[in-house]
Amino acid sequence: MDSRLNDLPLDHVAVAVRSFTDTLPVLERLTGARASAPERVPAQGVEVCFVGRVELIRPLDGNNGVARFIDRRGPGLHHVAYRVEDVGAAMTALESEGYEFTSARPMTGAGGHRIAFVHPRSTGGLLVELVERG
Amino acid sequence: MDSRLNDLPLDHVAVAVRSFTDTLPVLERLTGARASAPERVPAQGVEVCFVGRVELIRPLDGNNGVARFIDRRGPGLHHVAYRVEDVGAAMTALESEGYEFTSARPMTGAGGHRIAFVHPRSTGGLLVELVERG
Repeated sequence: MDSRLNDLPLDHVAVAVRSFTDTLPVLERLTGARASAPERVPAQGVEVCFVGRVELIRPLDGNNGVARFIDRRGPGLHHVAYRVEDVGAAMTALESEGYEFTSARPMTGAGGHRIAFVHPRSTGGLLVELVERG
Repeated sequence: MDSRLNDLPLDHVAVAVRSFTDTLPVLERLTGARASAPERVPAQGVEVCFVGRVELIRPLDGNNGVARFIDRRGPGLHHVAYRVEDVGAAMTALESEGYEFTSARPMTGAGGHRIAFVHPRSTGGLLVELVERG
């Protein structure tokens, strides 16, 4: 086991929504925080914003995983994200232990961070993001 | 707005699973933490355990909301929980603002804590738990 991957902090929890305005009010009400300015993430085909540690994800078109998730299951919680120092090294270590990822290489996520997703079939249905914050 | 409800800390994130062993390994691998001892919560018809701030929920029979969630959507993320000082007062305040709850009164959750769930139809599909830790 690669000890550098232990003790990863929970970075955020993401919710797939059709519209930010459906879900922002309750989160702003409970946390007293205002949502961050929406940010488009073209590589993922989505727009995102954060309220505290909860990320809202809105698909920009019907041709991406988030849109298909909403079509299939309705809006709701989508993934949890853990912070890693080096997402490429984390992928290599976890793949060597049999974990599968949704992409062959790290991708670009919100904020330009490098990200990767452990495939739900490796985790009993839980989509887990690894995010490298520079 | 009741300022006592602002700035609520995110308490945990819960995942509905058919079996703990489907999803525990990846969480223990990433966090380096061991899962807590499983705890039965008869009032909810489930058994739960925690790995860090992630709760796994396993239905004990087919007659509860978690079992129906898994039947309908498959295993996966189920709810986010925010910590409140007084769950009854929080329900009263939020109901007066038009938020709906899944029960008329607080219920008993894991650890004997008083809990309540904001209904997903008030939140654009996101199930939000309020938990009062003694």
